[in-house]
Order: sequence, then C-alpha cells, then structure tokens
Amino acid sequence: MNAPFLSISRRTRRTPFTNRVREAGVKAYTVYNHMLLPTVFRSMDEDYFHLREAVQLWDVAVERQVEVRGPDAARLVQLLTPRDLSDMPIGRCYYVPMVDETGGMLNDPVALKLEEDRFWISIADSDLLLWIKGLAVGMRLDVAVDEPDVSPLAVQGPKADDVMANVFGERVRDIRFFRFEPMLWKDKEFIVARSGYSKQGGFEIYVDGSANGEPLWDALMEAGKPHDIYPGGPNLIERVEGGLLSYGNDMTRLNTPHECGLGKFCQTADAIGCIGRDALIRVIMEGPQRMVRGVRLDGAPLPPALDPWTTEVNGAFSGIITSAAYSPRLKTNVAIGMIELAYWEPGTTLIAQTPEGPREAVVCDLPFDGA
Amino acid sequence: MNAPFLSISRRTRRTPFTNRVREAGVKAYTVYNHMLLPTVFRSMDEDYFHLREAVQLWDVAVERQVEVRGPDAARLVQLLTPRDLSDMPIGRCYYVPMVDETGGMLNDPVALKLEEDRFWISIADSDLLLWIKGLAVGMRLDVAVDEPDVSPLAVQGPKADDVMANVFGERVRDIRFFRFEPMLWKDKEFIVARSGYSKQGGFEIYVDGSANGEPLWDALMEAGKPHDIYPGGPNLIERVEGGLLSYGNDMTRLNTPHECGLGKFCQTADAIGCIGRDALIRVIMEGPQRMVRGVRLDGAPLPPALDPWTTEVNGAFSGIITSAAYSPRLKTNVAIGMIELAYWEPGTTLIAQTPEGPREAVVCDLPFDGA
Repeated sequence: MNAPFLSISRRTRRTPFTNRVREAGVKAYTVYNHMLLPTVFRSMDEDYFHLREAVQLWDVAVERQVEVRGPDAARLVQLLTPRDLSDMPIGRCYYVPMVDETGGMLNDPVALKLEEDRFWISIADSDLLLWIKGLAVGMRLDVAVDEPDVSPLAVQGPKADDVMANVFGERVRDIRFFRFEPMLWKDKEFIVARSGYSKQGGFEIYVDGSANGEPLWDALMEAGKPHDIYPGGPNLIERVEGGLLSYGNDMTRLNTPHECGLGKFCQTADAIGCIGRDALIRVIMEGPQRMVRGVRLDGAPLPPALDPWTTEVNGAFSGIITSAAYSPRLKTNVAIGMIELAYWEPGTTLIAQTPEGPREAVVCDLPFDGA
Repeated sequence: MNAPFLSISRRTRRTPFTNRVREAGVKAYTVYNHMLLPTVFRSMDEDYFHLREAVQLWDVAVERQVEVRGPDAARLVQLLTPRDLSDMPIGRCYYVPMVDETGGMLNDPVALKLEEDRFWISIADSDLLLWIKGLAVGMRLDVAVDEPDVSPLAVQGPKADDVMANVFGERVRDIRFFRFEPMLWKDKEFIVARSGYSKQGGFEIYVDGSANGEPLWDALMEAGKPHDIYPGGPNLIERVEGGLLSYGNDMTRLNTPHECGLGKFCQTADAIGCIGRDALIRVIMEGPQRMVRGVRLDGAPLPPALDPWTTEVNGAFSGIITSAAYSPRLKTNVAIGMIELAYWEPGTTLIAQTPEGPREAVVCDLPFDGA
C-alpha cells in the first residue's frame, strides 16, 4: 500500500530541480501543492542519519510562494492570521497560522516581509492563493496576489553553514534564525533565510527564476563534496522526532491553532482584522479540548500512519495518532497525535489501534530526545 | 521518471474505496485534491480496451464536492462562472468553467443543483473550496460552504446500464445525460447522475457517507460479474481520444475558458454577477489568441507529456502539447494541445519538441476518430 507507483503528468508539476533529483536516483515522491516533492533517496533510515550527520540539498520547490503586494497588502496579510503582524520588520520570517472565519487552520506557512507593501507567503499543502484571492476580490482590496516563479532550495544539516559559505560567502553565517537577507551568487541576488523543515539547522534559498535552478544546484553539490553532501528531502523520522507539524497530516481545517500547539503565535486580541478573531477569542475563553502531543509506541516497528490511528483509554476515545515512524536511533516508534484534554498529560498511557493491532502508546512532550 | 514510488500519508487522503482498490491490485495512483486517484490496474492499454468493451468501476472520490447552501447560494454560484445559471433546473448537472477576476480558469467542475438554495460543485484538482469561502467571507454572503462526506463512484463503459439496473433498478436506465436523480439501494438514497470522465457512457454515484462505500462497491462488482466488470480509472488514452480536458494538464489559471474551447459554456453577457465577466467581455471582443486542439503525432509511441512539449512552425512558436498518449487502437500518438491562432486550423503541420526529439504533429479536431 505504501509503495505503489506514482503517475506523473503536467498537473503534478516538475520543479526546476527535478532533473537533478532524478539523476541522483530519487526513489519516491509525494505530491504537494500540485508539485513533486522528493521523499526518499537511499532509504528513509539512511537519509535520516545522513541528515543528522552531514548535509543535504532539498528540492522544496513545493513550498510555493503566494506574493501579496500593493497598498492593501499588509492589511490583507493581517486578515489571514491571528498572529499580530503590526510590528513585523522587513527581513523577518514569521510562522503564521492561517485560519478561516471559524478559526480552522487553512495552512501553516512562513511569511516573509520583503517590503512594507510586499510579502511572500511560503505555503504548506493547500491552495492558499485561492483563499487570499477570494478575500481580496470579495473585499475589493487594492492588492495583487499571484504565484511568482520562485522555488525554495534547502541546505539542511550540521554542515550547512560550510557549504553555504563556500557558495554565497562567509557573510551567510551571520544570518540569524528566521531572518533572511539577499545574497549574491554569480552576480545574481537570491533571498536566503536561515530556516527549513528539519531540526538540523540550515538555510532556504528562494530561487527566483527557474533557469537558475540547475546551476545553483550544481554549485551547492560541488561545494558540499568535502562535507558528504547528498540530495534529500523532509524526512518523516526526523520531523516527527523534532515535532515539526505537517498540514494535512497533523492538522486539518477542523483544527484551531491552539489545538496545534500554536497558541503562542496567536495574539488574537491584537491581531485586529483577523478573519478568525471572533471564533478564536471564543476558543481562548473555553480552552482547547485537544492538543498536539508526542506519542511513543514501544515494540516492533510500525508502518507509517496512512489514516489516523484512534487511541483509547479503557475503551473511551482519547485521541488520534496522525504521523508515526520507527526511529532507528531511539529504537522505538515516535509519533505525533491530537490528544483529548483528559489524556494529554505526558506519561499518560493510551492504547493505539495500529494496523498491527492494539499497541501501548505513551504521551510525551515534543520534540523527542536529542531531536 | 514516470514510475517512481508514491509516498502515502494522511495528507494524501485515502477514499472510502481505497481498501477495495488495493485488493484489486492497483498499480499506480496520482494525487488529486489531496486524495488518492487510482490510474492503472492491469496496464494502461489493457484498461483502455476493457473500458471500451465492458464496464469498469472507478474510485473517483477525488471529485470532492463543495457544498454551497443558504439564501445567497445561487448568487454565489453565479459569481463563480460565466455560464448563465439563471434558468438552471434542480436535477441538472452543468459543466461550469470557474474563473477568477481576470477570466483565468480556477477549475472546471460539474455543478449539481440539489435545491433552489443548495448546490454541489464536483471539482477538478484545485482547492476551489478556498476560493468560494474567500469570496463568501469577503462579501459577507449568507451561505455555508463546506466539503461533505460525499465520494463519487463511477460505473463507466458500454455495459454500465446493465450493471446499474441490477443494483438500483430498471428506472436508472431512464436518467438522461447530465441529469441526476435520487435512487434507492438497500433503503438508502444516493444521487445518481448519467455522467463521468470517459466517452464510453455510464453513471456517477454520489456516495453520501463513507461507511456506504465498501458495501456499494461490493454490490456493483457482484452485479457486474456477468459483464466482466473490473476496477479502473480515468484512462489517459481514452480521455485524450475523447477530447476530455484535464485541469492542471490541458489548462491552467493562465487560460480563459475560450482558449479551452469552453466558449459555449460562457453566456458572459447574461451571467450577471460573474466575477470574471468584465475580463471575459474583453476576451470575446478580441477573440482568443490560442485554443485547445487535437494533435496527432505519427511514428513510434511517445511517453506521456510530463511537461508541455513546445511546437514550432519554421522555428516560430506555435503552441504546446499538454497531454499525449499512444493509442494502441489508432496506432498513433494522440494528443491535446494549446495551439496559437495562426496554426490552429485542422491539418496544419507543426514540429513538436518531444522527449524523443522533434516529431511531426498534425492539428486535428477533437474527439479523435471512434472515441
């Protein structure tokens, strides 16, 4: 079930890096924002250890940008999120839960403020462009909303700074976490952020112009040779250990940011204009009834969760497990779940209905040890 | 390239029929509306001939419904499309191009009018829900917009009527093309339409309630035994021969309905309220500069088009080929392209830049012979 073939067509878009990914022997993709996302190169386990020890080059072009620009851009971006953006400086990346009028999560992107009236919203897997355009048209806002030809390329892992410094110069080391700066390579300017969908450190390069994709890929691979660089991608084991949530997996439109543990990114009272504000004020008054948690399932390796696994306590529903992977480092199954209020204290033992039968599952904090 | 593995997770949603599809030995999926769409069972060629000769059961749950209901529902649905819906009767399916404020295609769904103030929009591959919700919220319309637990199951092929009559009764034969009626099976009511994404005839059953999926699947497979029923899915060869367009493949947000040959579904002048109306009136005045056409490429079988193939005439750009398949029946490569005005007359010879090198490509009408 987990390894059928993928039929590819124009609709499942190739990226500026797909040729290189293919030449490197990619084994599997998923489809994300109507685009190919490489998931496995050597094996999930090998890719995991390599990411933690060396450095990887990731084709994350699927993190499409929604560009919002124009006189009403700042107002529109604030409409989208309960995070207070009134003091957001240029040059910063903000993780911004995006909610609808009921406070339900529509996406969990990173927003970059490029200019006072120009933003890139680097999206997870939903057509947020359509929501933003719909609002802009419905409210007759004075903005342009579109998807530019910008494809992120990530350099992730402990050796990321060395590789990046070789290509973009030593100054890249000074970029702080979730800050971005324009950096030069061969007289071309690229926005480079210290960010990425792993806990191993690294950068994301916003490659503007598809034609720049392969030359930059090649330069980074060459610069990374002394550091054992290899192509990779978001790794299920690493991201579950690190507690990095995945929209569509660990949360859906039915969840509030507070359920996703993103309450700290919601200054709802101050986020004047946020469409979901009224609904979220209600959520804050009542408190979330369930919350994202780590879950540890000892015993034999379990397959990935293709559907949520229900968990129970004495036969009563206690939550769902939404992502799971066997960690070859921790020698246990690590998981992320949405656990009901009565059961979410770390240490609580649940029974998970896994594809291999019932299994003890212990609630724990995220991230996992040593992630 | 065309057959790497697919990584599946909760985000690439399973359908109510996925277990059955898997048991039947599905070979490949694509991902469509964040959900698994089976594409190949025996082989693309075998599936093609079987579809034309017998009858197939298709898991097309990926045709998700956007339900729009409430006092402003009819007004909102008309906002979305240049097709005049003022006289749309209950019980009808309408193919409705959905456009943005620039007249660009956002989706090409089939809309079902269930009640005066309640519609299902059966969508192609984009999160049209977000566009519709964005407009509704932005305009403060009095509607509810959501995705119900409804999963279409298609019975397609020349024997479809016999199979359906066995399960739903003889009255199903009387349903006319693009009409729907509530039909009973085991005291449960299902909306059944004569429709489907093939040219071989058949029905789509809107399975309301996931729990009904497997029992109905099993009943249809049982009823189809005398007719050699087998699971299938939209078949690339058959749909290209039939000239059935695919959103994301043959058209994108950059194309107008007129470029897609859907001008007959645009009563722009009468579609009062349509958001793209002003832009499309301009398109009508100037006429489209390119249009969807059939293209025939004789010679050895070509691979599917993963990216558009550029076509040229005397070195000048003349269009792109967006879908292609080798037809084992017509013994030629059949294709769909977006061809520029100066070259779109049937019979025009282009040179296509295929992955196998330049190839003569002759513009033709759609559908292909005998589709």
